[in-house]
Amino acid sequence: MEVENNCGGRETEAPSNVTIKGILGLLMANTDGCKQAISLGMGDPTAYSCFHTTSAAQEAVVHALHSSKFNGYSPTVGLPQTRKAVAEYLSTDLPYMLQADDVYVTAGCTQAIEIAVSILGRPGANILLPRPGFPIYGLCAAYRHVEARYFDLLPERQWEVNLRAVEDLADHNTVAMVIINPGNPCGNVYTHQHLKEIAETAKRLGIIVIADEVYGHLAFGENPFVAMGVFGSVTPVMTLGSLSKRWLVPGWRLGWLVINDPHGIFKTPKFVERLNKYCDISGGPTTFIQAAVPAIVRETTQVFFRKTINILKQNSDFCCGKIIEMDCISCPCKPQGSMAFLVKLNVSLLKDISDDIDFCFKLAKEESVVILPGTAVGLKNWLRITYAVDASYLDEALERLKSFCQRHS
Amino acid sequence: MEVENNCGGRETEAPSNVTIKGILGLLMANTDGCKQAISLGMGDPTAYSCFHTTSAAQEAVVHALHSSKFNGYSPTVGLPQTRKAVAEYLSTDLPYMLQADDVYVTAGCTQAIEIAVSILGRPGANILLPRPGFPIYGLCAAYRHVEARYFDLLPERQWEVNLRAVEDLADHNTVAMVIINPGNPCGNVYTHQHLKEIAETAKRLGIIVIADEVYGHLAFGENPFVAMGVFGSVTPVMTLGSLSKRWLVPGWRLGWLVINDPHGIFKTPKFVERLNKYCDISGGPTTFIQAAVPAIVRETTQVFFRKTINILKQNSDFCCGKIIEMDCISCPCKPQGSMAFLVKLNVSLLKDISDDIDFCFKLAKEESVVILPGTAVGLKNWLRITYAVDASYLDEALERLKSFCQRHS
Repeated sequence: MEVENNCGGRETEAPSNVTIKGILGLLMANTDGCKQAISLGMGDPTAYSCFHTTSAAQEAVVHALHSSKFNGYSPTVGLPQTRKAVAEYLSTDLPYMLQADDVYVTAGCTQAIEIAVSILGRPGANILLPRPGFPIYGLCAAYRHVEARYFDLLPERQWEVNLRAVEDLADHNTVAMVIINPGNPCGNVYTHQHLKEIAETAKRLGIIVIADEVYGHLAFGENPFVAMGVFGSVTPVMTLGSLSKRWLVPGWRLGWLVINDPHGIFKTPKFVERLNKYCDISGGPTTFIQAAVPAIVRETTQVFFRKTINILKQNSDFCCGKIIEMDCISCPCKPQGSMAFLVKLNVSLLKDISDDIDFCFKLAKEESVVILPGTAVGLKNWLRITYAVDASYLDEALERLKSFCQRHS
Repeated sequence: MEVENNCGGRETEAPSNVTIKGILGLLMANTDGCKQAISLGMGDPTAYSCFHTTSAAQEAVVHALHSSKFNGYSPTVGLPQTRKAVAEYLSTDLPYMLQADDVYVTAGCTQAIEIAVSILGRPGANILLPRPGFPIYGLCAAYRHVEARYFDLLPERQWEVNLRAVEDLADHNTVAMVIINPGNPCGNVYTHQHLKEIAETAKRLGIIVIADEVYGHLAFGENPFVAMGVFGSVTPVMTLGSLSKRWLVPGWRLGWLVINDPHGIFKTPKFVERLNKYCDISGGPTTFIQAAVPAIVRETTQVFFRKTINILKQNSDFCCGKIIEMDCISCPCKPQGSMAFLVKLNVSLLKDISDDIDFCFKLAKEESVVILPGTAVGLKNWLRITYAVDASYLDEALERLKSFCQRHS
């Protein structure tokens, strides 16, 4: 019960009828036009010149296109060389080698989510989702007639999974639990120990873990990024990821769904057939971008990756420092990874603000600053702030946020 | 009854558990390796040098990529300039102007099919599909819990829709009927008059028409291509299409779903909200390819389009001429469009072949020629032959087919 009270807003319903893009669109339309609008809402940093992909990646795509060999369909599971390159790329984080056949190339992580939820779905099935979380899981489950059940992430424990809640929610119709690490919307990074506990819990329950690692390797705090696939021998893990965040190319729509199952518990011939068939009716990603993946993985330097990490760390530190100056907003967990984090709104300190949605709409109107209300990710009276923004814009937006808070105190 | 007898194979079940790619993969694996394998199975002509996209299209994509402005997410319904360009491109075939808002940019026609079926789906709904047809519709409906009901296309009437069957199948739970024009797998092109009759039937039944025009403008016979949207004022039409076939770039995954509804019967605010929300949970196509679409549409010359049409016409004529020499195969409808057509197999003239599937597997094994059995598209003892193949390969493959037929007569 203490946990419940600490966190607040746990009564919030699963946000099955709202998308992040939908609510951000409404907020942006609510900005007044006098000041330049600044969005700290989206996870797309590419609007800013400091978040530009490496020329190695760009030229690899141009090269594949100019070869004229990749204008046709690819196999629906992905080009063999792309599957192999992703398998090798991910294997560097694992105690075993992935095979090309373990990798399904998808149109971004979004399609990987859709395929994962769709192939696990069957009448009466349920799936365990984190709250706060990423709304597309719940929406996708609703469209596929899979019941979504929500377990809490605990802010007082660095947003770790409430594993007791997971055990309470699961039954014989539970097919999987989802974790997002590094965390969106929380900005946390799980420890090796916690991931091990998650795997052991899933094993006890006889369910697989869907590990959304779209922010994989974007960790800059004390916990290093550990791939969930490390525990694939404890319980089968389906890893979802993409080039989008680490390579700063979300518009390229190149992702993957990977089966981490070294003991072959889950990857039966029947399951593989089902997965292949589902891929046949989905369109995969652009063929010439797939063809560029081996060169992209091979030729991207650590210098490029480190630059992104450094900017994210500086920005998140700056962000936390500014937030401390605002009485009505607190930051229980300093961000350690991904591109956004959650801060808690104390509406009782504001005179004319009813909740996080009211706060965000008034902020958009008065200050032309867009921030995502926590309700959109399942947690009322929290705010998700994206710090993957050019430093000068971040400074300006946080100054406006501060004066908004002062004015409404 | 006469119709049923003429056509044969009408007892074939809807092919809801087979995909074209799946069966072609099995056939290809069955070729023996002594002769070079030739596939007359896939609708992907890009393996052949005579079917190469225009450099205008390729350079437009490179230009958009090099601009570095399109590495981020696009709006999930598509970039505004892409929606506008597609609206203008399609409006040239219509008696009214489409607006950018009528266009939803999709990851190829496959995703357009998925979105169309998904947003129309509701518990108990059914959708009317052509037989023979394109199996992804049935598979997609099955995954979305929409019932598929099949109406016949009539080979003795140039594969026109059996409209009486449509009226018999429809009930108050019917949401739409699908037509594919130019036809896949039939290779036919519907007349203005027949499309009008389809629209009037749909109007009487209170259903919309989903017009799959992925082969739009690829017509080379006596019937010119007429867009179904011409009849959008009779009944609302959802047009699905892509760059894939006309621009010879199926691997680029750039398609569209367009609402042709000039009277606003179907495109209510509630429907638009539902469609926009569904797009929010699907990933759209690659942003920089979307950004290239205005230039692609503007700069592609008629010379390029005519070249493709001329090759398809020559190849299809050649194909028909060869088929006449084979006793066990007949061609009731000369192809007029798309990239493939159906021919009828008379197994009673073959000594050791049981049906179309047996025929295709033995042909693959003995001659290393891959042809799609009609069963895969809903019609037993027919064959789908793709003629979007380099002329020399087509000649060689048909010679091998002929000797196979002679040997088994």
